[in-house]
Amino acid sequence: MPEKEGALKRIAGNIEGYSYGEDSVPRSTVSIGDLTNLKISAGFTDEDERYLRIAGEVLADQTEKIVAHWRAGIIASIPHLARHSRTTEGQALPDYLAKSNLRFQQWILDTCLRPYDQDWIDYQQEIGLRHTSLKKNKVDGVRSTPCVPLPDVIAFVAVMNETIKPYLSARGHSAADVERMHFAWCKSIQMQLALWIGPYGQAGDRNPERTSQ
Amino acid sequence: MPEKEGALKRIAGNIEGYSYGEDSVPRSTVSIGDLTNLKISAGFTDEDERYLRIAGEVLADQTEKIVAHWRAGIIASIPHLARHSRTTEGQALPDYLAKSNLRFQQWILDTCLRPYDQDWIDYQQEIGLRHTSLKKNKVDGVRSTPCVPLPDVIAFVAVMNETIKPYLSARGHSAADVERMHFAWCKSIQMQLALWIGPYGQAGDRNPERTSQ
Repeated sequence: MPEKEGALKRIAGNIEGYSYGEDSVPRSTVSIGDLTNLKISAGFTDEDERYLRIAGEVLADQTEKIVAHWRAGIIASIPHLARHSRTTEGQALPDYLAKSNLRFQQWILDTCLRPYDQDWIDYQQEIGLRHTSLKKNKVDGVRSTPCVPLPDVIAFVAVMNETIKPYLSARGHSAADVERMHFAWCKSIQMQLALWIGPYGQAGDRNPERTSQ
Repeated sequence: MPEKEGALKRIAGNIEGYSYGEDSVPRSTVSIGDLTNLKISAGFTDEDERYLRIAGEVLADQTEKIVAHWRAGIIASIPHLARHSRTTEGQALPDYLAKSNLRFQQWILDTCLRPYDQDWIDYQQEIGLRHTSLKKNKVDGVRSTPCVPLPDVIAFVAVMNETIKPYLSARGHSAADVERMHFAWCKSIQMQLALWIGPYGQAGDRNPERTSQ
């Protein structure tokens, strides 16, 4: 583990395919200056950053439950979303799902606890790429759907935002503090979404008008 | 006013440039079936639809205040957003702003009160187009910025979602009901965003990686 990472920042010692901050992650053309503007557009302030840190502490030991809620509890019963973790013939890929779930867990903590610096920007691009035909399946060497259509990614954000809230209140914070944590979370996800669309443009498979393909 | 529109659905008898349901609005290739899938991806249910109707009643006489809050209270003091309602030299275009504000007000009610049918899908495409170089400025015959960069649109959704909430509680509904109204609102906006990206692809000016251009 690189020295700059704190103990709280990893949900497991080894997360296969997780390459945050590594040289293998391509540099994004989005600069810190662009991110500053994006923060302003999203109303993301230092206070939001502070509340995200609190959220990170609250969520740190709940990430497994949250991702199980999203993946097994919701996505698994939606065929047009579940197929992205299966073979193109619809067979289960439990190993792929398990690895991707670990990264999904880590993403929750990264959202809350990482500094939003160039590494963070670069990894947003990487996350975007891994949902497009340019990089989906490649990290895990699987044969699944070529990409996750962008409209579904955008729409599913609403589900994550809604369902995360009870987990934010699980440590007895006041309703007002939970609300602040939640708005900070929502702003961050919206900024991330704004960064994920770049790779879809690169890949040319944004597939904007169809939720199925 | 076409017969199918109820009295509650318009914030003014004449809204210049507002063409919801009119033949001049191009038909979207997004079908009702696509929208059904998108609703599932966003977790948008009949209950959300019911709470949006309540939200519409709550917001109906507050739309002017809300849009003033967003436009004069927030956007006006953010140069990289405010410029989209100004000339390319940065001069005010009060007439353009006034017309666009009226449409912005109406959009709040349409979000809450319109049936999500093919007309609604088509008008989402029209709204998207009017933020791109294909149609921005054209309806009002002004010379302003060619388009609103998509990352800023995505990011500003977080601001609208946060700031709408107090207005939802202005009529004394319980905190639980306000929460349901708010989640329904957020899901709808996320679905609309998923539909707005299509026109950005058509226009080729999604400008995904920069918040300024």
